Amino acid sequence: MTEPCFDVAHLGHVELLTDRFEESLDFFVRIYGLTESGRDANSAYLRGWDDYEYHSLKLTRSAATGVGHVGYRASSPEALVRRVAVIEAMGCGIGWTEGDDGHGPAYRFKDPDGHVFELYYETRRYVAPPEERPALKNVAQRFHGRGAAVRRIDHLNLLARDVRAIRDFMTRALGSRVTEQILLDNGRLGGCWFTVNNKTYDIAFTEDHSGASGRFHHVTYAVDSREAVLRAADIFLDAGVFIETGPHKHAIQGTFFLYVYEPAGNRIEVANAGARLILQPDWETVTWTEAERKKGQAWGLKTIESFHTHGTPPVAVKH
Amino acid sequence: MTEPCFDVAHLGHVELLTDRFEESLDFFVRIYGLTESGRDANSAYLRGWDDYEYHSLKLTRSAATGVGHVGYRASSPEALVRRVAVIEAMGCGIGWTEGDDGHGPAYRFKDPDGHVFELYYETRRYVAPPEERPALKNVAQRFHGRGAAVRRIDHLNLLARDVRAIRDFMTRALGSRVTEQILLDNGRLGGCWFTVNNKTYDIAFTEDHSGASGRFHHVTYAVDSREAVLRAADIFLDAGVFIETGPHKHAIQGTFFLYVYEPAGNRIEVANAGARLILQPDWETVTWTEAERKKGQAWGLKTIESFHTHGTPPVAVKH
Amino acid sequence: MTEPCFDVAHLGHVELLTDRFEESLDFFVRIYGLTESGRDANSAYLRGWDDYEYHSLKLTRSAATGVGHVGYRASSPEALVRRVAVIEAMGCGIGWTEGDDGHGPAYRFKDPDGHVFELYYETRRYVAPPEERPALKNVAQRFHGRGAAVRRIDHLNLLARDVRAIRDFMTRALGSRVTEQILLDNGRLGGCWFTVNNKTYDIAFTEDHSGASGRFHHVTYAVDSREAVLRAADIFLDAGVFIETGPHKHAIQGTFFLYVYEPAGNRIEVANAGARLILQPDWETVTWTEAERKKGQAWGLKTIESFHTHGTPPVAVKH
Amino acid sequence: MTEPCFDVAHLGHVELLTDRFEESLDFFVRIYGLTESGRDANSAYLRGWDDYEYHSLKLTRSAATGVGHVGYRASSPEALVRRVAVIEAMGCGIGWTEGDDGHGPAYRFKDPDGHVFELYYETRRYVAPPEERPALKNVAQRFHGRGAAVRRIDHLNLLARDVRAIRDFMTRALGSRVTEQILLDNGRLGGCWFTVNNKTYDIAFTEDHSGASGRFHHVTYAVDSREAVLRAADIFLDAGVFIETGPHKHAIQGTFFLYVYEPAGNRIEVANAGARLILQPDWETVTWTEAERKKGQAWGLKTIESFHTHGTPPVAVKH
Repeated sequence: MTEPCFDVAHLGHVELLTDRFEESLDFFVRIYGLTESGRDANSAYLRGWDDYEYHSLKLTRSAATGVGHVGYRASSPEALVRRVAVIEAMGCGIGWTEGDDGHGPAYRFKDPDGHVFELYYETRRYVAPPEERPALKNVAQRFHGRGAAVRRIDHLNLLARDVRAIRDFMTRALGSRVTEQILLDNGRLGGCWFTVNNKTYDIAFTEDHSGASGRFHHVTYAVDSREAVLRAADIFLDAGVFIETGPHKHAIQGTFFLYVYEPAGNRIEVANAGARLILQPDWETVTWTEAERKKGQAWGLKTIESFHTHGTPPVAVKH
Repeated sequence: MTEPCFDVAHLGHVELLTDRFEESLDFFVRIYGLTESGRDANSAYLRGWDDYEYHSLKLTRSAATGVGHVGYRASSPEALVRRVAVIEAMGCGIGWTEGDDGHGPAYRFKDPDGHVFELYYETRRYVAPPEERPALKNVAQRFHGRGAAVRRIDHLNLLARDVRAIRDFMTRALGSRVTEQILLDNGRLGGCWFTVNNKTYDIAFTEDHSGASGRFHHVTYAVDSREAVLRAADIFLDAGVFIETGPHKHAIQGTFFLYVYEPAGNRIEVANAGARLILQPDWETVTWTEAERKKGQAWGLKTIESFHTHGTPPVAVKH
Repeated sequence: MTEPCFDVAHLGHVELLTDRFEESLDFFVRIYGLTESGRDANSAYLRGWDDYEYHSLKLTRSAATGVGHVGYRASSPEALVRRVAVIEAMGCGIGWTEGDDGHGPAYRFKDPDGHVFELYYETRRYVAPPEERPALKNVAQRFHGRGAAVRRIDHLNLLARDVRAIRDFMTRALGSRVTEQILLDNGRLGGCWFTVNNKTYDIAFTEDHSGASGRFHHVTYAVDSREAVLRAADIFLDAGVFIETGPHKHAIQGTFFLYVYEPAGNRIEVANAGARLILQPDWETVTWTEAERKKGQAWGLKTIESFHTHGTPPVAVKH
Repeated sequence: MTEPCFDVAHLGHVELLTDRFEESLDFFVRIYGLTESGRDANSAYLRGWDDYEYHSLKLTRSAATGVGHVGYRASSPEALVRRVAVIEAMGCGIGWTEGDDGHGPAYRFKDPDGHVFELYYETRRYVAPPEERPALKNVAQRFHGRGAAVRRIDHLNLLARDVRAIRDFMTRALGSRVTEQILLDNGRLGGCWFTVNNKTYDIAFTEDHSGASGRFHHVTYAVDSREAVLRAADIFLDAGVFIETGPHKHAIQGTFFLYVYEPAGNRIEVANAGARLILQPDWETVTWTEAERKKGQAWGLKTIESFHTHGTPPVAVKH
């Protein structure tokens, strides 16, 4: 056994594409409760009230929907160098970018399904303006209580045609650990949950049956309690947001979840993991069988059909 | 800046001494909601329902109260070797023990205040007997719902005469990071909160004004919600357990807390941190001034006097 | 408009029949968290920890399942006399009984679907034995925290072939108010929610399509929070109790619900209504259309099919 | 024993006086989360999102602070007539007013301490404008989630020099029941909690030691969970609102409470009572002794000194 890798500190941000920029932005700020740090030509930089970085969501005006890229922050400058060397050796590197309003130089690369990732170390800390300054200086921003008032980015889920290839890629490129996975009867991996730190997962990949590649399933922000997820459901209901499924508890990872679609159709989650963490350094991957998954979610809710089909950008149905 | 250290994975267990063994055990099992994994000549091995190890609390029959020792688990066998080398070089080592029912060989050492620590890697996983087997295989034990039904060990707090010496010690010996601290007007450190992972803290030290050394302040287990802390308060109230202070929210670290005394007088906490984690690899220590601390806890509750004086073993008051 | 009637104070108890007495009793005491006050030849007398009466659930050994009878407590001796006169004039009276271990003389009568009701005033208060005495004397029993630890009986739901006939009956016999109802496209009432006090409902009737009569849908106890409902779901899951549907929020009445089957197959609910009360003396019945009901529950959960078919005693399916 | 009286349906509204009208209004709308229904020359009419009437708080521009008047709604026109006859016979009537923007004719009268009350039946229902229309038609307004987002008016607390005289007055004038009270060692009543319906209390009076009369202690709105009270504390903290005490649980009535001062100094509470109701028609008053009260609140929090002294309008301290 090799020693666990700690080169990557955490998921930093997701760039989400929208073809309804104004409506999406209104949803994320007023209803979901993110705060806008700033804006450049095509993007708004958004974050949860306790995200320490300038942004954790980059909302970008686009002709399509889905994910632009996914950014992870390295643990140190040295760790960044180490990872880039590994990724280049893997042959999936794209190269360095100068970064953007939110962070410094970033090394870009692609996963086997074509999603774009980047690794960076230099970042821009969010500095709260006077009206957003918190009463307690150990949080990034005051608790504004606006909408679902999500606290921080938690994880994202991407679709991929070959999850097994993704598993090899993520464990090598980022040094991620596989905390849970679904092993289908046909021997394929139906889904994989990865983490680079003590969170139970920061990214998950689930199998895309559509024939498309590079698609996005959802991005998730954490709130402090399951009650806050229920409260968000009330807010979404009354604000006319489409609720796809939940609130309920995932059998996998035990997360209390709620899924909605933002106005452009990207799936967005509000979640709470309770006090669950993976602190065990030699955690053994939990493998769920197809039979176990057919039981539905933790308390018996059947997994909604659209959860297996709806991704962004949408795929034209073949006849 | 050196790279962050990841050699120590997490706080593993606390050995607590009691001069009322049967009463303390009854409290921890029936009211606090730990599960007994087993027992040897002088100790009961206890754990929260989602602690993955055989024990996180070793309750030991003793003539006194307070802490026996504190165990941390290393991230790997190699990391254990590295840490032991550092600790030996620091001159505070005691030496190797064979371990006990809960884990393998452990290297023991002392902090500057005389508390005994140990580092180990080989551990014994808790294997749930049939009646405790969970419905979902990604948790260690079923949610039994007994008493406060705490989930997992969270942190402990020790008293020390010289917290600054402790800060040097912890950052060197364990590679801990200092997430928050109290800087008194007299230049002394009133308290220091440390972590080896993404938890906001796994150990804290606060200044002991009694003249004694090696004393214990409290040990804490995490529950999944603030509501669960409130529920625990109702249970403690009706079970006749002495509630010292809370539930309320700490200004430091933002933890929602509740403190009680177990029958032998050791202070025990139930806490929930919400979704708060320290994921930032270059987190800058938050320093609280004496003036800031005088404001009390987060929502204004004045810190109770006994919090500054009561530790175990108790100290004879000088006249 | 006539003045509102206040002759009936509240739902007192439900007699539930079980053909698996020991298993049902174990469920109600150990997992659902009721306390047994006593037992007679065929029944156990059970109550939630803050029910003030000797019992709110009479669990009776029987060859079948379903409801034995439903008891309401009158507001005063005079009010009891008034109600009995009305009921006798309606021609649906059965006559007086001496009561049982839990209350004094009761007047029995039948609803149009054949369910047996009784009205009584003299009751037996629960007197907590020393080990169940609460720390605060304004509750009936200490908060024992056992299982789902439900607080008090809340409501029950009965099936009836003709809900419109039931509506006439309940409003006349008990002076109940109809707080909400479902009006089907065929002009029939699909369901009716009634209350005699400020609770939003204490009994509901929904249409029985099976051709049977006198059947039982579910009985519900209240807990203090939605989080307590979620916690109950975790407990049921790990205790192997069948969860039918939920937790979710009803569109009708807004109640946060969770339905399980006790071992004999009777449907049991745990619920929380938040701070919702009907204080308005001239509340106008809220009428839901069939189209509105097809939207499912509050946050979009489709109403589970068994909710429309499963009642106790079960009905042989016709082919 | 006479039959219980049901002539008064519920507490309708409180008129609160402020000498900082704009600041108070901003607090109530933006931070406390009330909605403004309308305004007349000197007052803003405010309500919680599920208050069915046009207003439950009338905020009135004034040279002083404290309470203007307290309105209760009768159960029926006939009940209103009955109550007025009783009150006139008691000799404490003031006479009829035409009502205001929120309700029809009201009969005004004074309690022995000089507080002005009114009884009315005809009321104006809140009709939600399109942007406030709820998704579910059984609530009065959408859940806007603004600030503490309190649901409905719950109760108020007034100061009085002679609580025993108040007890006689309230039980006769409104037919209120005394659910709990404090009996001091000197034989005086320290406080009395009254209800006209199934809520555990809708008004309380506590002894005023200042020598003043007609003073106001606090008004309270209900939220759906204890977690919502905690959330409100976070919001108040970050919004710079003065938190006097709490969150904690009252020993009396078991209410989970949080007290703040609005900008003009009137004390405002956010509270949750869980599932606690007084359904028992022959509830016996719970009497707390002075010794019992000295234990503090439910979980041991000492009652804050200002709770015994701060009322509005403030009283000049005598030397």
